[in-house]
Order: sequence, then C-alpha cells, then structure tokens
Amino acid sequence: MGKFLNSFSTRHLLVTSLALNVSLLLMVFFKTGADGLDGVSLLKQVVTLAAIGGLLSELHAFHRTQKTTTSASSSTVTIANLGKDRVIDLDHGDPTMYERYWQQVGDKSSILIPGWRSVSYLSDPGNVCWFLEPEFAKQVTRLHKIVRNAETEGRHIVVGTGSTQLVQALLYALSPQDAKEPINVVSAAPYYSCYPDITDCLKSGLYKWAGDARSFNKDGPYIEIVNTPNNPDGTSGQAVVNRSRGTLIYDLAYYWPQYTPIASPADHDIMLFTVSKCTGHAGMRIGWALVKDLEIAKKMIKYIEITTIGVSKDSQLRAAKVLTVVSDSVEHPKKKEESFFDFGYSKMSERWKLLKAAVEQSGLFTLPELSPEFCKFSGKLFGTQPAFAWLKCNGPVEDCEALLRENKILARSGKHFGASRQFVRISMLDREENIGLFIERLSKIRIEKPM
Amino acid sequence: MGKFLNSFSTRHLLVTSLALNVSLLLMVFFKTGADGLDGVSLLKQVVTLAAIGGLLSELHAFHRTQKTTTSASSSTVTIANLGKDRVIDLDHGDPTMYERYWQQVGDKSSILIPGWRSVSYLSDPGNVCWFLEPEFAKQVTRLHKIVRNAETEGRHIVVGTGSTQLVQALLYALSPQDAKEPINVVSAAPYYSCYPDITDCLKSGLYKWAGDARSFNKDGPYIEIVNTPNNPDGTSGQAVVNRSRGTLIYDLAYYWPQYTPIASPADHDIMLFTVSKCTGHAGMRIGWALVKDLEIAKKMIKYIEITTIGVSKDSQLRAAKVLTVVSDSVEHPKKKEESFFDFGYSKMSERWKLLKAAVEQSGLFTLPELSPEFCKFSGKLFGTQPAFAWLKCNGPVEDCEALLRENKILARSGKHFGASRQFVRISMLDREENIGLFIERLSKIRIEKPM
Repeated sequence: MGKFLNSFSTRHLLVTSLALNVSLLLMVFFKTGADGLDGVSLLKQVVTLAAIGGLLSELHAFHRTQKTTTSASSSTVTIANLGKDRVIDLDHGDPTMYERYWQQVGDKSSILIPGWRSVSYLSDPGNVCWFLEPEFAKQVTRLHKIVRNAETEGRHIVVGTGSTQLVQALLYALSPQDAKEPINVVSAAPYYSCYPDITDCLKSGLYKWAGDARSFNKDGPYIEIVNTPNNPDGTSGQAVVNRSRGTLIYDLAYYWPQYTPIASPADHDIMLFTVSKCTGHAGMRIGWALVKDLEIAKKMIKYIEITTIGVSKDSQLRAAKVLTVVSDSVEHPKKKEESFFDFGYSKMSERWKLLKAAVEQSGLFTLPELSPEFCKFSGKLFGTQPAFAWLKCNGPVEDCEALLRENKILARSGKHFGASRQFVRISMLDREENIGLFIERLSKIRIEKPM
Repeated sequence: MGKFLNSFSTRHLLVTSLALNVSLLLMVFFKTGADGLDGVSLLKQVVTLAAIGGLLSELHAFHRTQKTTTSASSSTVTIANLGKDRVIDLDHGDPTMYERYWQQVGDKSSILIPGWRSVSYLSDPGNVCWFLEPEFAKQVTRLHKIVRNAETEGRHIVVGTGSTQLVQALLYALSPQDAKEPINVVSAAPYYSCYPDITDCLKSGLYKWAGDARSFNKDGPYIEIVNTPNNPDGTSGQAVVNRSRGTLIYDLAYYWPQYTPIASPADHDIMLFTVSKCTGHAGMRIGWALVKDLEIAKKMIKYIEITTIGVSKDSQLRAAKVLTVVSDSVEHPKKKEESFFDFGYSKMSERWKLLKAAVEQSGLFTLPELSPEFCKFSGKLFGTQPAFAWLKCNGPVEDCEALLRENKILARSGKHFGASRQFVRISMLDREENIGLFIERLSKIRIEKPM
C-alpha cells in the first residue's frame, strides 16, 4: 500500500494560519455547520488548514506558558516534542485535554493532605462500603443531581480503582459461585477493547468472554455490558440480547454533557462512572458504581476487599475536591471563568468540526453519523461528540491502523473491538498539539493510485 | 464454655495507675526483661495492671489533644468510644498506631497537590513501569539503602495498589499461560490468611491454592510465598518446599526495624513491600515489588494495566513524601524529634512487654518464642516484636477466637491461617486505647473450673 505526503509545507500552513483570526474562523464554521461542508472548495480547504494551523499556533503559545508554570512548580508534566515528524500516540484515551482547564482554575482545585491522613484502611466504618470516603460519595451524588445524568436515590455507591476494577467486581458479584460452567459475558460490537481482556485474563472459572452480544444465542444466564455513549463509536446503545436470564451492566463513562446530550437521568440497576472521563483525572484511578441491589453491592465490596483492600483514600479526597469545583462552576458561575462543562463541550465541538472537515477534505475516511438531540443540561441541540473518533478507511484500504501508522499516527485497530481492520479508534481527548497535528496529517493523507 | 470477669474494678485500676509514674514502670520492665517475669507475684500483678492503667491514662490525655487537633483541621478521624464495655476489633491489622507519629511530625509530611495533577494515565512513559511515579521510585530506593533491608541494585520497581495487588500480579506473571492445569500456590502454615482468598477468589485456570507448603509433595511447577517475618506468628522463614521447579515470592511487608532485627539486606529475585506496614499509611493502598527479571516485571505491569490501568498517582506522590520524611528522620535527626523507626520500635517494644506480662498473669495463653538477634540498623539486640500477636489458648480452651469474643475482643481464628482454633491472630498496631483495653481484658480472663 503506497501513499504520498501532500507538498503543502508546515511553514506555509503556519503563515496562512497566523494571517487569519481563529475566532473569525470558528464563527465561519459555526455558521456553515456540518451540513454546509458538503462541497469541497478551495476556500474551505484553506479555512480548514488555516484553522488547524491556528489551533497549532495557539497551542505553541500555550505550551510556552505551560513550560514556565510547570518548571516553577516542579511538575513532572512532560513537555512534548513539538517536532513535526514525531509519532503521535492516540491509541489510549489519555484525557490530557483537561489539563488546561485545571491549570486555569488554579488554587481552588488544589488540596493539602496532612501526613497523618490515610493511616487506616477504613474510610467509613459504618457504611457497607467501608472504604468509601464520605466526602467523595457526597460530591458524586451532588454532581449527578446537578447534571441530571443518573438517578442516585435508592442506590449504593461503590468506589473502585477506576471503573475497570468495578467491571471485575461486578463480574465477580454477578457470577453464580457454584455453577458448572462460567457465565457468558457479552457486549455489542464494536465493544470497548478492554472488556475481553478484563474478563479472560485470569481464565476465571466464574465467567468468560462470549463476544459480540448481537450474535449471542445461548441459553442460560449471561451478563451484558452496555456502554453508552459507546466506546469506540459514540452511538447510544441499549441491551441487544434481551433474553430472560441476563443481567445488565451500564457503563456510562461518557454520559456527560461535554460528550453527549443529556436527555434524562439514567435509571438502571447497575451503572458505572469514572473520574477519568468526567474530569480528566485518569491518574487518580477512581471510578464509582451506582447499584440498587444491596447484595450485589456487598459482593462487589468483598471483591475489592480481597483484591486491593479498598481504594486509595488520597485519590478519593482529590476526586471529591475536583468534583466540588466542577459542581461549583455550574451552580455558582463566575464572570470570566468558564464552567467545566462549557470548557469540555467547546473543546470537543471545536475538535470534531476540524476533524470532520479534515476527513471530508481527504476523501479517504468516514465517521459515524450521530444525530443531534436536545440536551436538557445545556439547552443545546447537538450530536454526540465522542471521546474517540471511530474512523473507517474507505475503498482499497484494508488496514486502517497500518495506514495511520505509516503517517506516524498511532491508533487502535478495529480488530480489538470485534470489528474489521478497516476501522480504527483514535483518542480525541489528547493535548491540543497532538490533536492539531493528527488532524493536519489526516487531512493530507493520500493513497497512491495503482499503476 | 464459661468465664467470669475479674472483680478488680476499672476505677481501682485507674487510681493505681495514676499513682505510679509511667516512666518508672517502664524502667522497671526494662530492667526486669522478659526472662525476669517467670514467677507470678502480687507485686508483678500490681505493676502490670498499673502499667496498663498508665498506658490508658496517657491515651485518654492523648485523645483529648487529638480531639482538639482533629476538630480544628476538619479531620474525619473517628474518636473511639472509650467506654469500658465496647467491643475492640483487632481482627484486621489496621496500623493506626502510626497516626500519632504523623500528627507529631506536622506540616513537613503534608503535601499540596494542585488540581491539574493526575490528568493522565502516564507517570513515566519512558519506564517499563509507565505508571510508576519517579519520585516514589527514588524514595523507595533511598529508604532501602538507608535501612539496608533489601538490595535494590539490578531490580525493577513495580508499584501496586497495595502489595495485595502485587501478589496477584506475580501469580499472573509466574503462571504458564498454556498449562493444562493451574499452577500450585503454597505457603508454610500458619500462612497469611489472605493468600488463599487472593489466589482462589476468581477460580482462575492459571493458578490455584494448594495450602501448607510443609505438606506439599506434588511434582511440577509451583509458587511458594515466603512471608518473613511471618504474618501471623512473627517467625523468620525460608522456603520449605525446595523442589526443582518452584518460584519464590518473598513477602517482606514486616522486614523493617521497628518489628524485627535487620540482619542483612534481603537479596531475593522477587521481593514485596508495602507502605501500610512500613509507615502505617494503609489507606494509600501502595505497595512495591523489587523484581530482578525484566520479563516477570513486564508481565506484572501488564496485569496491573489490565485490572486497574495503573496505580493512584496521588497516593504515590503522598507515599514519596512520607518516605522522604522517614529517611530524613534517620539521616538528619533533629533534637527533640524522634526518628520514625525509634518511634515504631519503642511502641512495639512497650506493647509487647505489657502483652507478655498480661499473658503470664492470666496463665491461660502462650505466645511464640522469638529469639533475640542483632539489628545492624539500630545496633540493638532484640527478638522480633511482630505486628500481630499469635496467641495460643492453653488447656481446655478449644476455640480461642470465641473465648476472646466473649470478652469483647475480636481477633482472627487460627483456622484461617491453616492452623488450629486454639490460635488467634491479634493486631498489635491499633490505636493506643484499643491495645491498652485489650491487654487489660486479656490479663483478667479466667476460665471457670468444671464442677
């Protein structure tokens, strides 16, 4: 498979971009809208490339600031090599996009933890979830009530070392302990690529991965994981098996208003959330489950007790703090300060507009169509702007991941998601300069015509 | 089984205790030594009870101070009910004894974490253990070099959500992926009661618990966990199976100079440590492994990636801070400030002297004999003063846990450790008032003679 790089130079690109006011460009985009981008015209190409260039230029400036900040505060944040030839890793969904918001917010999101804190396994001895920090639980409930994205009444909160641990705690809790055969675990393809590994890594006798929920036709009990909006493709999903003996786990990691319209509070028996995709603090390793059934919650707690004897208190305290700042930014907005969800929504919206334009310009790729819906939280009408781009390579390209790799973009092949290699999943939550470079490169990918 | 409570009243006890200077009592104990307590005399009973009372009285004073401190700093530390009839839970090894040290140390062990920290999964992208905070790794190495309790040269550090997760990461890493039968996992009884649960909770096809290493006589590969000094009985251990196809995991959670003499740096291929038992910060959920073989380290890292996508950065940062304070307290001692290990050693020494005296007074129990050895770190000659008392009920008592429960002391029955019900494991790391009350109650337990 051959390709050639567009001869449009980066220097040229930057000169063009600097000549145009970014806000004007965004205004043009907003007026044009996604539907207005049907015809590929010279003007639009210039606008797209200039906007990407503008994004990059803005990012260069940001990075200079960040360099000073981080140096002053002895941070370990890696200042990425801004060289145009470097490899861009968008394989993982590392939500570094949010770092900027938290730097802007400043001191009020900081936390001082005295040395004597965390000298005990216990956080709340009277609670069935004895390792749950009360302040974290309080802020989780508060935020759900503000965003109205999940019912919390009549639910037990179980905290986990990320929602990844909570998925395992649920598999443990929902599997019959005395069954002859492990229970089947399914999810509709394309499914989150980690579900199979999480399920099968220890070859458990309690549960086993049974693949795509759409092709599942076995009798007996099963567990179906419904991820909505879905990682990788951003679609809103429902259970697909719908047999009598199933238990559903709703993984709602991305059911937040920066990604998707909040139509109504999710009201399922078992729901999972994670700080990583809500506030961007992936390094905290904090997730939470809202669970109706006390016995299921107790078994999950038992699993977390056996495998990690609870969950980091320090990260729960920090998570409580950043959730407080998020809720405050909505409930008590201040002039000149962006609310957290406005920041997230704007970023995602801007990135998706540029990506769609670049995809259109290239002509080689397609993206899922996600219809607009009304968001009761923001009052906006918009289509899901997912944390990942689920990109399909059209025509002769059989291995999209390989094509991108040749162009120094690392993405995760569709094969890991129960889909074909024509697809790749690309993180849209990375730092600005990486997203900018990725979109720039994508827009320039061409396939050599067979001789 | 019947029993009666000694009629010696708490009021009497407190009056006696207040009449005696605590330091004088401790001096008497130090001079007498463990060997000097053979004969049960009236004088010794008075001294024992008075010392226990003195300990309690000191603790009441401490708690009054703590109440003020914690109230001022909005702490969530639970001020225990000091009622004489309350149940004392010493089942878990909650290391709350150390809280006092960290309160005394004050601000220099505090840490300010800005809101933008932890907005990434990655801690050290260039390291094979990409989720390891460099400062934590640095302080782990520094402390081992200062205490000389483990070789760090030529080892990879793998951080885990407590050493509990690292045990599982090792089982995953050391199990052949393609074997027909799960590999056997053993440990010499009495073994840490969590090993069987950790190993078998998911009915893994990779490994299975095979019980007491002393009775293991199967062919084929196996994994032996050597816990030294051993939880629950404090003995120093070596591998006992010694067949050709075994891999050894050394769990060195308690190989620190407050518990046991440091004879030489441990120099095994796989060694485990945990912050919980070193500094007392159990709520951080941070452990570390020192691993010689890169391929084993890589597999462990893979396991942690699959099951929790790394380890809390916040807790690693906090752990780095408290380890720094510990090392500084040894390397740069200050007047009027106790070094961390001096604090821990003194506490353990004091508690064990009182416990031994109480056991002797009761006549109902025995404790393991742990011979003195020379500690190269402290220059002291002493026998291991374990984090747990491995108490045996003598004579007619068949269920030691039940006997203690009747006396409102919760402990863990020997049956969970592959031993008989005549044994119980009792935490010696709890808060002062609990240890004081426990020792007081233990000293007064009597068995009704059969009619």
